[in-house]
Amino acid sequence: MINKLYFNPSDKAVQENAFEALCQEQNYIGYYNLPNQDITPLLEYCNTIPDDIETIAVIGIGGSSLGAKAVYEFIKPTKELKRRLCFFESTDPINITTLLSKIDLEKTHFLVISKSGTTIETFSIYKYLYSLQNNASAYTFITDPGSPLEQYAKEIKASVLHLPDNVGGRFSVLSAVGLVPLALCGIDIEALLLGAKSIKESFFNNGYMKDTLLKKAAFYAKHHAQYHINCIFAYSETLKYFCEWYVQLWGESLGKHQRHSAFHVGLTPIGLIGPKDQHSFLQLIMEGTRDKSVTFIKIEDFHDNITIPDITLTHLESLDTLNSLPFSKLINMQCDSVIEALQDQGDIPLDTISVTSVTEKNIGSLIFYYELLTSLVGELIDVNTYDQPGVEAGKIILKKKLEA
Amino acid sequence: MINKLYFNPSDKAVQENAFEALCQEQNYIGYYNLPNQDITPLLEYCNTIPDDIETIAVIGIGGSSLGAKAVYEFIKPTKELKRRLCFFESTDPINITTLLSKIDLEKTHFLVISKSGTTIETFSIYKYLYSLQNNASAYTFITDPGSPLEQYAKEIKASVLHLPDNVGGRFSVLSAVGLVPLALCGIDIEALLLGAKSIKESFFNNGYMKDTLLKKAAFYAKHHAQYHINCIFAYSETLKYFCEWYVQLWGESLGKHQRHSAFHVGLTPIGLIGPKDQHSFLQLIMEGTRDKSVTFIKIEDFHDNITIPDITLTHLESLDTLNSLPFSKLINMQCDSVIEALQDQGDIPLDTISVTSVTEKNIGSLIFYYELLTSLVGELIDVNTYDQPGVEAGKIILKKKLEA
Repeated sequence: MINKLYFNPSDKAVQENAFEALCQEQNYIGYYNLPNQDITPLLEYCNTIPDDIETIAVIGIGGSSLGAKAVYEFIKPTKELKRRLCFFESTDPINITTLLSKIDLEKTHFLVISKSGTTIETFSIYKYLYSLQNNASAYTFITDPGSPLEQYAKEIKASVLHLPDNVGGRFSVLSAVGLVPLALCGIDIEALLLGAKSIKESFFNNGYMKDTLLKKAAFYAKHHAQYHINCIFAYSETLKYFCEWYVQLWGESLGKHQRHSAFHVGLTPIGLIGPKDQHSFLQLIMEGTRDKSVTFIKIEDFHDNITIPDITLTHLESLDTLNSLPFSKLINMQCDSVIEALQDQGDIPLDTISVTSVTEKNIGSLIFYYELLTSLVGELIDVNTYDQPGVEAGKIILKKKLEA
Repeated sequence: MINKLYFNPSDKAVQENAFEALCQEQNYIGYYNLPNQDITPLLEYCNTIPDDIETIAVIGIGGSSLGAKAVYEFIKPTKELKRRLCFFESTDPINITTLLSKIDLEKTHFLVISKSGTTIETFSIYKYLYSLQNNASAYTFITDPGSPLEQYAKEIKASVLHLPDNVGGRFSVLSAVGLVPLALCGIDIEALLLGAKSIKESFFNNGYMKDTLLKKAAFYAKHHAQYHINCIFAYSETLKYFCEWYVQLWGESLGKHQRHSAFHVGLTPIGLIGPKDQHSFLQLIMEGTRDKSVTFIKIEDFHDNITIPDITLTHLESLDTLNSLPFSKLINMQCDSVIEALQDQGDIPLDTISVTSVTEKNIGSLIFYYELLTSLVGELIDVNTYDQPGVEAGKIILKKKLEA
């Protein structure tokens, strides 16, 4: 994975302080250690799920679903998988009914994922599904150790797996929360962690990623008042759900009151997919207010060498320049052209991330790269990256409504 | 459809001027007249497509696909449709191969949609598909009258349908561009237009929508420097692609140089789906920088009355307040709770749109409501709502790369 920046902040001391803060955080924030975990127990658990289970259904929302979905949807189009993964993540009745119509209850294993063990969406859906399938062996629960959910699961004699200590939902994809559903589908979670580990080591051991991530985070923090919208523009449909994962990670981590002031601060994430969004959002980036930075993500080799045939269409001869071009080359030329057009503007901060191909290792790297970047920016804009107090108010109001 | 505003700008004269401008635009901007069109010719054309065609595949990008997709994905979960609709809208080779693996070429009719007739994405995909299926009767072309594409289509004796005059891509969903694929799938396009017409008449004939839309547009324009991010928070998974359509409509129309200044201006659209994004983006709205307005969209009746069963889970008795609650009621209580929590902040501009249910008429209303709102805001922030000069630069660079 190569990350090329087209900007260069010079505040070295600020960057070193942020680096030191992350080195400290490693002692008490759980996600930093996930790339180094021993996955043997998780793989052993996965082997207990019968072979005739065709579908793994995650019942979970937000951090309990977005990470696994990002990896699954990235890998799925390029690999024959062992099982299908689906996600019950909405209380929309139409959505629940539609999802149910697509699965065979007898051949589905449900993963009920809730850190707190009391998520309203997860348990309203779980209660409904349990009324259709009350065989406890069809369920595994993933939750914090000692939560009421764990006690319930033990009561009905269902399997329980734990989240590691101090791993927040949006940083949990490389824990059991993401690894179990992915491994059950046949996704290579060892490679996924290896990708994450390569970024971790490069960052903490003074490698290439340290300099790059620090510069990028420092630039975002320094210019947060102007460039407060941070777009990912990913040139592959496979990265669509990675963008949704990024939106949660970035938005929920970085939109807060500052720790040492009364200010509201926030960096707004936007996920775009190329070339499609060239025909949608690009106009706004090119000519709109100068409030957006853009990170292009490119896949160098799609390993799917379909080529535009050498056909001339009468009256459309101008399109002959496309002939004999592999699509993988075309899509990257489109990306390069947009990068050049934005560079010509001179005042839109850009960087590019290139990954070699669609593999578990590469998505693992992208995930850890963005987690580190989020932690760095959070540190630099003086927020608590790991809490989300703003979502409590709505929950309290809902609780009152439900009790009424 | 009811739209309740929680703000009230007082600049009556400005609002009346914008209204007058839209009345004038009706004479030369094509989309205003689409609700009143005679759809008989389109329906007659649809009847010429053989009954054994199972899939309608749109080859088109941006304005040529997002509108039909929004309506199709809204209606699909609640209605038994005649045919399946799919969209080839990316040059990503993995995406093309995946889509192809899901269709039977002999039972697919392709709609090649390109206003200009020379869209790079559309024709690279078309050439590839044509090399697999070269039967001209499998294709219909939708383009501007007299375009080179029309000449090509006539040459190979394929069907051609036209876009009406002066209808831009992102305003074209209620023209042949959207109506033909939707009608071929069995979606009631007459009801769709009826929904649009009801908003049009209410607006132009001094009804309820005139006052509401003018106030909302005036507020957005007046406060564009502060509240320059405009979120839709739609409480139903069925509205996911409506949000993508909105993002194009809003971003590409309103992100521009001003007509009478050297300023870049722009309003940034964001589409959110509840309750899912309560666990993602909500924190940023609640506690982040005060730069966002939020429009909640609610569906009053989901017509899918699944209910949370009356089950007590040992150790999770606190969740009993959910028991016997219909999901449709729960999701709307969740929405109301978030609205109240945001209202309590006091400085986040909110409004709510309620539609009665998931019907063609209602999505038609939503579409026309947002088109009118876009036109009004464009007028008030002094941009040309209907062009997109910013996307040309990248196209020119790509053209040079392709010729090299």
